[in-house]
Parts: sequence; C-alpha cells; structure tokens
Amino acid sequence: MHTGRTTEGVILAAGEGSRMNGRESPDHKALRKLLGVPLIERGVLALRQAGIERFVIVLGHAADALREDLGDGARLGVKIAYVECRDWAKGNGASLYAARNALANDRFLVAMADHWYEPAIPRRLIEGAHDGRNLLATDFQVDSVFDPDDATKVRVDASGAIRALGKGLTEFNALDCGLFVFSRDVFGALEHSFAAGDYSVSGAAGRLATRGRLDAVDVGDLVWEDVDAEETIRAARRKLIRSLPSRDDGLVSKLLNRRLSAPFSLVAIRLGLTPNAVSAIAFATAALAGVMFALGQPLIGGVATQLSSIIDGSDGEVARARFQASTWGGMLDSMLDRLSDGLILAGAGVYLMRGGADWWEALVVFAAIAASPMSMMLKDRYQLATGSKWQSQAHDGLARFLLASRDGRLFALFLGGVFNQVLAAVTFVAAGSCILLAWRLIQMWRRLHTGTPVGEEPAAA
Amino acid sequence: MHTGRTTEGVILAAGEGSRMNGRESPDHKALRKLLGVPLIERGVLALRQAGIERFVIVLGHAADALREDLGDGARLGVKIAYVECRDWAKGNGASLYAARNALANDRFLVAMADHWYEPAIPRRLIEGAHDGRNLLATDFQVDSVFDPDDATKVRVDASGAIRALGKGLTEFNALDCGLFVFSRDVFGALEHSFAAGDYSVSGAAGRLATRGRLDAVDVGDLVWEDVDAEETIRAARRKLIRSLPSRDDGLVSKLLNRRLSAPFSLVAIRLGLTPNAVSAIAFATAALAGVMFALGQPLIGGVATQLSSIIDGSDGEVARARFQASTWGGMLDSMLDRLSDGLILAGAGVYLMRGGADWWEALVVFAAIAASPMSMMLKDRYQLATGSKWQSQAHDGLARFLLASRDGRLFALFLGGVFNQVLAAVTFVAAGSCILLAWRLIQMWRRLHTGTPVGEEPAAA
Repeated sequence: MHTGRTTEGVILAAGEGSRMNGRESPDHKALRKLLGVPLIERGVLALRQAGIERFVIVLGHAADALREDLGDGARLGVKIAYVECRDWAKGNGASLYAARNALANDRFLVAMADHWYEPAIPRRLIEGAHDGRNLLATDFQVDSVFDPDDATKVRVDASGAIRALGKGLTEFNALDCGLFVFSRDVFGALEHSFAAGDYSVSGAAGRLATRGRLDAVDVGDLVWEDVDAEETIRAARRKLIRSLPSRDDGLVSKLLNRRLSAPFSLVAIRLGLTPNAVSAIAFATAALAGVMFALGQPLIGGVATQLSSIIDGSDGEVARARFQASTWGGMLDSMLDRLSDGLILAGAGVYLMRGGADWWEALVVFAAIAASPMSMMLKDRYQLATGSKWQSQAHDGLARFLLASRDGRLFALFLGGVFNQVLAAVTFVAAGSCILLAWRLIQMWRRLHTGTPVGEEPAAA
Repeated sequence: MHTGRTTEGVILAAGEGSRMNGRESPDHKALRKLLGVPLIERGVLALRQAGIERFVIVLGHAADALREDLGDGARLGVKIAYVECRDWAKGNGASLYAARNALANDRFLVAMADHWYEPAIPRRLIEGAHDGRNLLATDFQVDSVFDPDDATKVRVDASGAIRALGKGLTEFNALDCGLFVFSRDVFGALEHSFAAGDYSVSGAAGRLATRGRLDAVDVGDLVWEDVDAEETIRAARRKLIRSLPSRDDGLVSKLLNRRLSAPFSLVAIRLGLTPNAVSAIAFATAALAGVMFALGQPLIGGVATQLSSIIDGSDGEVARARFQASTWGGMLDSMLDRLSDGLILAGAGVYLMRGGADWWEALVVFAAIAASPMSMMLKDRYQLATGSKWQSQAHDGLARFLLASRDGRLFALFLGGVFNQVLAAVTFVAAGSCILLAWRLIQMWRRLHTGTPVGEEPAAA
C-alpha cells in the first residue's frame, strides 16, 4: 500500500542519563526493565510492529552490555547493525550523525533508547509519512509527562508545521516525544548545528523547523515517557499498565473487570505465563463454572463465571505487555471464549433441567446458547466483507447498554448464580443477544446501503 | 496491488452471426437472453467483476437496439462509450480497429459480444497480465465447446507462448476463447493484416503470435461458449447452470442437494426472486422445521429441514446467475443459516424435552447448538488473521467425511426426523461438530507454526 514505506530505524543508545545514578554506571539505563522487558527491547519491538525491519543502534557508554543483550536482533525478529560513536558525550546529535554511513535508505525513523512509548506511536508516525517530509511525534497534552520542565517544547502552527522547538521555548503548544522520521536532510542540519556548537538532535530539528521542513504528527491520547530518572521509570510503568487494556471493552469490562484483571496480569507477567497459558486458565475456570452449575452449586458456578471473565481480560494484556501477541493466540482465545460461553450456559441449563424445568425453559437455554456467539460472528463477517472492523464502542450506540457483549453476559450469569436466579440470568442473556444481533444487522444494513463510512482502527498486532 | 491493472474493455458487438437466423435480423444476437440476462449484459457484468470500469462497445448491425439496452452503462455500474464501425461486415478486426481512438489506456481487454464465459475467465486473464505482453484466454480441453470445428485453434508451446492460431490450423493443442488483453501493438498488427486482405482479430493475433508477442492464459476447468447458433445457446445455458454451484460444497450438497437446488434455482430465476428472497424462504422453511419438531411432528420437521438445506443452496446460484451477489446478501445469508441451525436444533431439543428427556439428553442438545456454528466461526477467524480463505475441500482432509459441515448436519437431522431417531441425530451433530472443530484447530495450528502455505481462491464476488 505505502510505496517507499519507512523500514529502517536508528536507535540512539550512546548516552548515559546524567540523572539516573548521579555517576557513570557499568550498566546502561536502556537495559532497565519495564514489566520484565528491557526498555531498549521494548523500543525495538514497538518499531518492529510499525514495520521497521532493520536497525542501526548507536552505542557509546556501556556498549558491550547492550550488544550482548540485543545481539544481531534475530531473537527479536529484526536485523541490527551497530555503530560506535566516540563523541557521544557531546550530545545525541553526534550519535545520530555517526549513523549516517550505516543507513541503507533515504528515510528512516529515529528513536531514543531511553524513551518508552506505546507501540501505536511509531505506527502512527510511519503512517503519517508522505512526500519526503521530516516528521516529529508531538504530544499536545503538555502536562502528560512526569517532568514537563525537562521536556523539549514544540510550537506547531495550524497547518501542522513545526515553527520552533527547544527545551527553553516559552511559547509552545506541544511536547517533543523523541520519535522522528528523517530524510538525509538531517545530516546537513546537524553539520550546521555542530558548527554553532550545538550537538543535540533538537538543535538540528530546530533548524529544519525554522526552514519549514519539519511537520508534527499528533500522538493524541497515546502515551510515552522520557525515562531519565528513577521516578520516571515508575511513571512509565504506570502508563504502560494503563495502556494495556483493549480499547474496545464492554461496559462491565471497563468499569469492573479491568480493575481486577490488571493485578492478575502483573502476577501472570511476573510468573512468566504466556498469553496462551492465561487463555487456558480462563477456559478451565469457565469449565469449572459450568460443572458447578450442573452439580447444583450456582453460587460457586456464578463466582467462577465472573472469575473466568476477569482472567480472560488478562491474556491480551500479557500479550501486549510482552509483545507476545500472535495470530494463533488470537484465534485460540476467541475459540476458547465461545467454548467457555457454551460450557457455562450448558451447565446453567443442566442445573435448570435437573430442577425439573419445563420445555419452554429449555428453549430459553437453547436461545441463549445459539444467540450469544452470533453478534461476534456477525462482526467477523462484516470485517471480512467490507475490510473495516466493526467497533462496538463507536457503532453499537445505545445497544451497548444491553450488556449483551461477552463481559455483560457473563456478569449476568454471575449475578444469576450468586442470587440463585439462574433462569432469569439465562433469559437476560438470550434476550440481550437476540436484540443486539437484530440491532447490529440493522446498523450494518444501513451502513452498507447508505455508504456511511466505518472508521478503521490500526490493525491489532 | 497490481499497478497498471487493466481497467478498460472493448466489446466487439458489430457483427451479426451469419448462422443465427440465416438472414439479417432486426435484433442483435448479443441481446439473446441466458437465464433472463442478455448475453452482452453478461459480458459487461463479468468484465466488471474482473475490475473493468470503462467500456468501448463497437456497434454495427442493430446498433440502436444495443444502445437502447445498455445506455451509458449506469444501470450496470460501468461507463460505456460507443463507436460505430461502418466496415464491420468485413470482419471483427475492422471493428476492433475502429475503437483505437476511443481508448484511454495502453492496455485493454477485448471480448466478443456473442461469447458466453464464466466471470472467472476474464478475472484470470487480467490477473495473468504482466510486462505489457499480449494475452489470449485459451482452453486446452479442445472438445469442450459445442462445435470445435468452427472454433479458432491455437498452438501453445511449453513456455506458454502462442506459436500459431487460426480456424484451419491442423496441429493445435488449445482453443481460442475469444478474450484478449492487448497493448496498442495490436493496431499495427491489424494494419498489416488488413493489407493482406484479412480483416479478422484472429489474423492480427496470428501475426503477434508469429512474432512471439502473444501468450496463452489457461482457463483450466472454467467454461465458455461461442454463441453463434441456436444449438450453442442451449449449450451455453447448460454450461451456465452447471457453473453456478459453489465450488466448496460439502459431500451431501455435492451428491444430493445440488441436483435438487438447480431446478429450484431456475424456477426462482424465472419468478424473478432475488437471492435475499431465496435466503428468506430457506430461513422460513427452517423455522417451520423447528416448530414442527417442537410440536411433536419429527417427520414433517425432518423433511422441512432437508428442504431448507436444499433451498439454501439456491440463493448463491441465483446471485451468480444474475450477477446479484452483494456484501449484504452474503452477510444476511450466513446469519440466517446460523439462526436456522439454532431453530431446528432448538425444535428438536423441545421435542426431546417434551418427551421427558433426562438432563444429559439436554446436554447433548446444548452441545449441538453450541458447537455447530463454531467450525464456520473458526474459518472466518482464520481468514481474518491470515488473509487466506480456509477451503474445506482442500484443508479438512478426511474430516470432510464426518459430515459435520452444514449440509451434513441438516441431512442427519432430516434422517433423525424421518426415522424418529431425533436424539441419535442430535448426538451425531454434536459429536461431528466437536470433532471437526478440534481437527480444524489442529490443522490451523500446524499451518500457522510450520508455515505450510494455504492456497487462495480468487475472492468471491
């Protein structure tokens, strides 16, 4: 699709953060771990998700430690070449300049080894690349970082062009996130900047800005952090954890489950569980719930149902936290979810049957089992047919309050189990699913026949 | 994807078939209808499916009748420009030559108004286009057409280059299907051919072939017919009807249902039913089946189930026969299929419950309802995740004989109803669905982890 797409990245990893320990350390701060993954590996993996396949990493301080950790990049699925910069202490511009002969392409992405950012930021930057312009990821929420005073400020005009940037800028409307797409222009700008005694990337970027050759790419609500001190590591960790939940959660997930799945995710990460292992635990818990309902223990069945729903939020969080998302993992998760739903509802059905239910109560169970997977199936079909993802948050409108998405259905069965109102819960699931299905069919019909555009999210990795 | 894709088509519609009536007719033979759609409209719509958006139609005999039928093309979703050729009686090469100033592009597809062909043939021709080569769709099954003596013969070498072509060729291995992709080269070849007194497209194509500038694109099992006499219209009609069934049918569909759905499709076409109306009839029949089971009439329920299964094969046939396939139609059909399955199984379940079933019998019904839609859901997920379609025929292997695809499941319920063995039928559905689901999960896991390629079919229109 994008011809000439940026596929090469430079990571500036030469400098030691002056404030990290107050002294030269044998380790490199970019090797500090966030949720078990070193900062620099997070950078490499985030850029890989954005389509960067080949890296030039500029080394200086603690070069051997970085080289040992990253190797040739094969473990991370990329190719890494190293450049050592002797002048790194002068500034990160000297580091970038040292990469100039190692680059194969005319356009490349430049990142700082000691920044943490959501993987969607480099993706957005690369998608915004056009016409050989130089680009800088900028954050218009100027108090979003831990230490705005220390950040590089940016003044962006209405057209999106950057007019000025610098740490000391007094009139500004955005912050520099430390992610650039540069053409080779930047090396000329660096030379001019060096001649004036400024060895920073900002110096050269400021020169490009003055000449009207640097554009801003707004990161919107996406978050990042310049990790140059102990407190900022903790800030980055908090932001990372907050960034993990899926952005298309149902109401129950958002208001309740996520608060409980986040600690579970952290434990799972600490234990080294893979996302597929977490999916399997959620499935086993659902199977337990079904069996408990069937054995006439609706209270335990209901609690296990909700537990399974909460754990199920964790597999995606673990996958995103550790860059372990996979095609197979996504497929397995969605299948296990459907099977879980079937097992829980079947258990509830057996509970009702053993209590001497009428045939019409059985019919309600049949309807719940048949209808509950269909709204997801319809979303899949829509995406296959149109190429656009159906986004519940944006497109379901008021129907979201039916609580007929998976989190809502399982919550109803939880309540039904706890208050021994199983038939009411199953009826709620059946009715909600049928109404949501009908609602979606009508919405899709309208969109397909009026050509109402459906917004697209960047594809999940 | 394909840069410089061929998007312009020329349809040669000037000449009157000499053998159609034995005399000049006020009508044009390309206005003869096949299953209710005039031959020339079929040509336009088939080329539109292949990505052709702009047409130049060359008129001669009965020009007004054609112009009145097709108009500016808006009704068919394309743009049509007309060229009148005064010399059309000399040969179809004269017609093609007349189009030369009306063409906007350097490469274009050329079709004969009086040929019928499966829409996949022009699609394959355009997908085969590369490097500015001239292409001819060729059929290596040399006795596949009604009158091979009258056909233009082609000699293709091992590399796929055409060495010679002509009606009188004695050494040949393929037939000319009358569909070309030409570059503007062809006009020079036509001029040389005219100078030698030959005014046919074949004459110019033969010259290109002699110079090694014409390649064959094998149509494989796809069918076509040169409709120049009454008998060939009937042959084309038979081929069209045989081409309508889906190529990824289950065993019961292939061996039984298709024999019965074809006549139903013809009736539906004659009655002017839309594909969506046929889907709705199949759904209503399934609903009737469910109600009949529930009311304690398994014989009627079973027969209605099979009837619904047969009618369900018709909506796609009607859509393909009349170029009425739509995104919405496909989505509606797949949703109604799942709802139908749910209704029939729920009806069978109520029948069992009202007969005083045990809780474990209810469990079998739950399993059947939960598992039967999942194999399709898994196929959808696989396609969303990998971009390749999961093809049951090619990828399910021996699992196809489980009869757990939809046609097999409904057939089991038909037998269960007729022989009053409803529990056995539902158990068969539940078990078959679960085994097929597990089998597909394993197959998909293997393909995703060994990188076994999954073949892709041209996307359905």
